[in-house]
Amino acid sequence: MQKTALIMAGGRGERFWPRSRQNMPKQFLSLTDDGKTMIQLTVERILPLVNMEDIFIVTNRSYKDLVRQQLPELPEENILCEPVGKNTAPCIGLGAVHMAKRYGDAVMMVLPSDHLIKYTSLFLNTLSDACEVAEEGENLVTLGIAPDSPETGYGYIKFQPEETLGRAFAVDKFVEKPDLETAKAYLASEQYLWNSGMFIWKTSTILKNLETYLPETCQGLKKIGEAIGTPMEEQALERAFQAFKAESIDYGVMEKAKNIYILSGSFGWDDVGSWLAVSRIKRSNELGNVVNGNVVTVDTRNTTIQGGGKLIAAVGLEDMIVVDSEDALLICEKDHAGDIKKVLENLKICNRTEYL
Amino acid sequence: MQKTALIMAGGRGERFWPRSRQNMPKQFLSLTDDGKTMIQLTVERILPLVNMEDIFIVTNRSYKDLVRQQLPELPEENILCEPVGKNTAPCIGLGAVHMAKRYGDAVMMVLPSDHLIKYTSLFLNTLSDACEVAEEGENLVTLGIAPDSPETGYGYIKFQPEETLGRAFAVDKFVEKPDLETAKAYLASEQYLWNSGMFIWKTSTILKNLETYLPETCQGLKKIGEAIGTPMEEQALERAFQAFKAESIDYGVMEKAKNIYILSGSFGWDDVGSWLAVSRIKRSNELGNVVNGNVVTVDTRNTTIQGGGKLIAAVGLEDMIVVDSEDALLICEKDHAGDIKKVLENLKICNRTEYL
Repeated sequence: MQKTALIMAGGRGERFWPRSRQNMPKQFLSLTDDGKTMIQLTVERILPLVNMEDIFIVTNRSYKDLVRQQLPELPEENILCEPVGKNTAPCIGLGAVHMAKRYGDAVMMVLPSDHLIKYTSLFLNTLSDACEVAEEGENLVTLGIAPDSPETGYGYIKFQPEETLGRAFAVDKFVEKPDLETAKAYLASEQYLWNSGMFIWKTSTILKNLETYLPETCQGLKKIGEAIGTPMEEQALERAFQAFKAESIDYGVMEKAKNIYILSGSFGWDDVGSWLAVSRIKRSNELGNVVNGNVVTVDTRNTTIQGGGKLIAAVGLEDMIVVDSEDALLICEKDHAGDIKKVLENLKICNRTEYL
Repeated sequence: MQKTALIMAGGRGERFWPRSRQNMPKQFLSLTDDGKTMIQLTVERILPLVNMEDIFIVTNRSYKDLVRQQLPELPEENILCEPVGKNTAPCIGLGAVHMAKRYGDAVMMVLPSDHLIKYTSLFLNTLSDACEVAEEGENLVTLGIAPDSPETGYGYIKFQPEETLGRAFAVDKFVEKPDLETAKAYLASEQYLWNSGMFIWKTSTILKNLETYLPETCQGLKKIGEAIGTPMEEQALERAFQAFKAESIDYGVMEKAKNIYILSGSFGWDDVGSWLAVSRIKRSNELGNVVNGNVVTVDTRNTTIQGGGKLIAAVGLEDMIVVDSEDALLICEKDHAGDIKKVLENLKICNRTEYL
């Protein structure tokens, strides 16, 4: 069966401020040493499995130009633009109706555009296996990551070790982000995997499930589908998206659906959730510093400095994050990485939108 | 007797990098909330005691324009330019021969250009008393600061509590910067004051002492004195300064001379020795932060941020110094303020002179 990929690139991540901005979200940034952006890496990674012309990007209308610049080889008609973000269920649904229109039915890999994967070949093996499971019957397949710590920032998926289908396990349930105690129990049980946000299914399967669990959304999607290629396409898209209830695919479908299978992957996955990730994914020196740009360090340890042309002199720093940009500079203690959003709240309150 | 002031402004302080540079030393910076530069404050402070036309500035030739810009009311001929810095003895000697030429004899107050004094009227009272002691006989007078901590960064002066002349005490000896144990003993003894680097004497007295203790320097000074106002002036100055041995007035004269008196001052003196001083001299908020410029702070305490136009977001900082400038940014833990010179050493080694 035809293989396709839907790469979700509508996120407006604030955690990489000041490099990420409303007009430059994380997926369009380069956070690795190779200089490629997250979305470029995401596309490049799956090319052995999916042809470029069968890769779709769903993004916000305002990022269309960024996608075209960063992925010039992607056919323009494969960039699907949401008039307004309504979380992942409408986003995936939009991809599915486009693919159904073009291919009839197809296996559809749904992938975030802003995660990193270290071992591409291991990932592609798992993804390929997932496609097989998805093709059989009407299975919804997801990739899960074996946890190595009791993370409270991820959703978890409980699987049934005895019930298998090829390399996949039947899913018992999806659970939301746990508190620390619960996360520790999940880890100890050895029956929970991290929810990676990657899904594999046939377009027919996901559309059927949307019809069952999100019938109103499905109505809107059908109208979009009927209008594709007609003069009414833009208007139908606009109307449907304005009307859509914002809903995640996890909550809207996966927590309720049947026939869900999970493949456990161990391929160096990183969701690159904050500046802290940079010290994991970029080369650090013997003092634990990750330094880019025009930087002088004295007595400085475990510190990430992302500079540019301006000289940055760091003296006596430990466990710090320093990020310079054209018009704004962040200096953040690593334990406070989650508080960067407070800076943005402050800026919003003061109506200093030029920095958002 | 005619009262004059000699303000020493040849210093190339590195401790306020990146605001201070080789072409913009500390005395020409504004480090207080009033926006006035250190040298402007120094001149303004003594105007009730000395007329502007009797104030002399000794500085390096390369800072002449800065002095003219910052002190436009000072007669240009009162700016004495050293071809090359040779520490304070030649600098003071140069001032003395110029004053001797203009006034015959005069009471000469020698003042650093880069210290702050909080209580001007108390300072002027002390300085006025010092002038009286200096005018009597051939006394060398200095101002000492009652220590409130065992500072190891200052020289100390031991005085004789029983031997007084007006408000002044006879000086027993000048001592160099002590180690911490010694400094503690000095503090406990109640017979030591900090050496403020401020001196008051007649030009005739200091020239006589220079002749006694630094005869070679005095020879050169005499040649300069003879050439003042002649076409040979520049050449005599150049030759003498190239030949001068670099020598401080403390080591070259004060540690050996007789008839030294000290007046103890308590007038809010601060030598503004590093960025740490800024948290003492500028207004801090209730969290102990001293913040200038375009700054957003979150969970930040006891931190000094000197920014400009660029937005600086500080998250989770404690006891830090952040100083932005056009082309360089300093981020320094307060306990490491003394290590800023290591940054400059590093830059020198790498021949990045544009940042020095």
